[in-house]
Amino acid sequence: MQIWNDYLAQHKDRFLKELLALLRIPSISADSAYKADVAHCAEAVQQSLLNAGVDNAEICLTSGHPIVYAEKIIDPSLPTILVYGHYDVQPADPLELWHSGPFEPVIKEGKIFARGACDDKGQMFMHVKAFEVLAQTNTLACNVKFMIEGEEEVGSTNLGPFLEQNKEKLKADIVLVSDTSMISMEHPSLETGLRGLAYMEVEVVGPNRDLHSGVYGGAVANPINILCKMIASLHDENNHITIPAFYDKVEELSDADKKALNAAPFDLKEYADELGVQEVWGEKGYSTLERTGTRPTLDVNGIWGGYIGEGAKTVLPSKANAKISMRLVPHQSSHEISEIFQKHFESIAPANVRVKVTAHHGGEPVVTPTDSVAYKAAAKAIQTAFGKEPIPTRGGGSIPIIALFEKTLGLKTVLMGFGLDNDNIHSPNEKYDVANYYKGIETIPYFHKYFAEMS
Amino acid sequence: MQIWNDYLAQHKDRFLKELLALLRIPSISADSAYKADVAHCAEAVQQSLLNAGVDNAEICLTSGHPIVYAEKIIDPSLPTILVYGHYDVQPADPLELWHSGPFEPVIKEGKIFARGACDDKGQMFMHVKAFEVLAQTNTLACNVKFMIEGEEEVGSTNLGPFLEQNKEKLKADIVLVSDTSMISMEHPSLETGLRGLAYMEVEVVGPNRDLHSGVYGGAVANPINILCKMIASLHDENNHITIPAFYDKVEELSDADKKALNAAPFDLKEYADELGVQEVWGEKGYSTLERTGTRPTLDVNGIWGGYIGEGAKTVLPSKANAKISMRLVPHQSSHEISEIFQKHFESIAPANVRVKVTAHHGGEPVVTPTDSVAYKAAAKAIQTAFGKEPIPTRGGGSIPIIALFEKTLGLKTVLMGFGLDNDNIHSPNEKYDVANYYKGIETIPYFHKYFAEMS
Repeated sequence: MQIWNDYLAQHKDRFLKELLALLRIPSISADSAYKADVAHCAEAVQQSLLNAGVDNAEICLTSGHPIVYAEKIIDPSLPTILVYGHYDVQPADPLELWHSGPFEPVIKEGKIFARGACDDKGQMFMHVKAFEVLAQTNTLACNVKFMIEGEEEVGSTNLGPFLEQNKEKLKADIVLVSDTSMISMEHPSLETGLRGLAYMEVEVVGPNRDLHSGVYGGAVANPINILCKMIASLHDENNHITIPAFYDKVEELSDADKKALNAAPFDLKEYADELGVQEVWGEKGYSTLERTGTRPTLDVNGIWGGYIGEGAKTVLPSKANAKISMRLVPHQSSHEISEIFQKHFESIAPANVRVKVTAHHGGEPVVTPTDSVAYKAAAKAIQTAFGKEPIPTRGGGSIPIIALFEKTLGLKTVLMGFGLDNDNIHSPNEKYDVANYYKGIETIPYFHKYFAEMS
Repeated sequence: MQIWNDYLAQHKDRFLKELLALLRIPSISADSAYKADVAHCAEAVQQSLLNAGVDNAEICLTSGHPIVYAEKIIDPSLPTILVYGHYDVQPADPLELWHSGPFEPVIKEGKIFARGACDDKGQMFMHVKAFEVLAQTNTLACNVKFMIEGEEEVGSTNLGPFLEQNKEKLKADIVLVSDTSMISMEHPSLETGLRGLAYMEVEVVGPNRDLHSGVYGGAVANPINILCKMIASLHDENNHITIPAFYDKVEELSDADKKALNAAPFDLKEYADELGVQEVWGEKGYSTLERTGTRPTLDVNGIWGGYIGEGAKTVLPSKANAKISMRLVPHQSSHEISEIFQKHFESIAPANVRVKVTAHHGGEPVVTPTDSVAYKAAAKAIQTAFGKEPIPTRGGGSIPIIALFEKTLGLKTVLMGFGLDNDNIHSPNEKYDVANYYKGIETIPYFHKYFAEMS
């Protein structure tokens, strides 16, 4: 629509500047040292929503970080879109690998470099700005509600209770989320599924104190060696996960689904080259797209034990730790898999060590329907803005809250992500292409329009 | 001898106070932040030797930390004892596990708690004080040379060249070292062998940056998982080391030697209880004393990779690292084993990661003869001071320099250690019993006397 394009053209510099201001706030939810920054970021989001034209915007306190809620009801008889996003970000370390400060956004070669640039401040803010375009040009076709949380990166612990307590307030027809990626600007796509997550922390304790590895080496179990052995045993030679019952509820894709999934444009050599690896890795019998989209995984996210400073120390340490997470696929339950993992990990511990297993946050896998009005409206919006049909894909990441929307609010979700796989989310030098940011702001109003028309 | 006992009784408080002063200097050789403290410690040792009565004491600069050399030549025709020790100490971390500051020595229940209390400031200083006893009571029976270095904990890198360049100056009849332990005050012992050491650092690199474990998990090799698998493969199910040719030069003990070794007083349950482990661990087919004294080992001394902070981060890290050391037994060569390890570790790396292996310092294994004049003099000194024959034992630790003494100076060594296995050397809350400190000062003069008489 010309009126939207004109408005965007007129305000695009400000739209970018406002995002950069938001990126300057180090809203790291995992680290309690940043609690005040997270609260400050919630206020900034609230203010930006008020400026964009919502009727009211509130900061909803939780026992963790606050949730920002806002709404604009133009006509109760029209469909309502509930926009979900998050303003918290991942920790920035390892800091030494960033080329510029994670919270000092810079634009280089058309890319915004900052922690949260893509995940999810950049993508969430597209909705605030798209709403501004609609509201300020008097072209809103749906009622809009915003629910922007501050704990997505730490498992959305307080969003579940918030949904329970605000069912009436959150009534809507669809949840709209931009917190995933698409294949490329040339191959726009829509995600139709997300993996779930079970995230564990394990500790292996041997002797009651650090020992001299000369005096005791070879005579006392070394917790690092034992932990390595236990972790190594979690995959077999085909890279299948060996935890009993782990795959029990995993469904194999139908041949047709397999074919559709593998039809997405994908160049294995380009993929490997971009990552700097000579060979990819994964479960035998599955393609890379199948592995990331449809198969459960187990990765060590962190490991530590013993002396890790400069030089050499001949210590046989008292304990060793690791953070281990599993990505889950439909029908697997985060809680169940956490329990299965714990039981198995404890069972494989030899008698000369003690093992402690605790669960961090988890999330359930989701599949979103492709035959719904909402999916069709999203597909048509992308067709209009990009001039191309979107390719349906399966995402490897997890947004724990999506499954809860359906369970608690009875709402389906549309995953309209504008990120790219090489955006370095959760990594140093996270970026978001300026073009993708603007393209999102251009596309979203069409979703509002088509969703109203098709509903 | 009454005259020695009288002198010791008269000066024992000062002898303890002087040791505590030395323990206050954080002479951590591995950490360059402590370079000035290490230098300051060398000066303190020099001063203490001058005060004790040496003819001259000098600070010998090296490209690393200095060596303190001192001597007292009473008669060139008498035998000469070269006392070797070290004034540098291990790093103190993990600091949070210390009950009092590592460099703020306290005496509790008859034990001196401080980093270096036993290893080796406490033991080295017994020789300074025993020399004082002999010198101040005019009862020296041998010439004495002191060579106290500041790099033992980092592999004695500069001591080899120092020996080469000072062969004439270091001429002696025996090297006397207190840097090992004995079984107990009730069961005094003398070590007749030490294990060697090969210390490696490995790095496993996967993708060229940290990745999101959802987007890439299951499709790209995770360097931590791979490192764990590689480390796990270094031991088989009997806890034998799997590196090809690793055992080629290892000799099995004769049945007689085995019998003698296992005759040392040792209670497996007490040993396990003291360490807080339910079961010991080790190579199948060997007893605990055989494992620590006569078998080579492989231990991970440190491991790190990925996110190790508070909470959860779903990262698939770019790399993972470990410090891995091997204790060696007679006929194994540190250099050779380092090469064998490197070759093997590189060979087991899968094609989807790159591996870098570097060697830290190493040391050769030693066996000291029990039929020599020096060993007999040491045994008689212990018999006199303790009223009991010492038990010959094999130590698990390494003092890399001992093999070099023989190779470069043609000198055998007597290992007259007064430490205890539970002194927590290289661990938090390192301690040295005040009684052992004084017992050492009481015993050493007898060695001088008997060595002169028997030579």
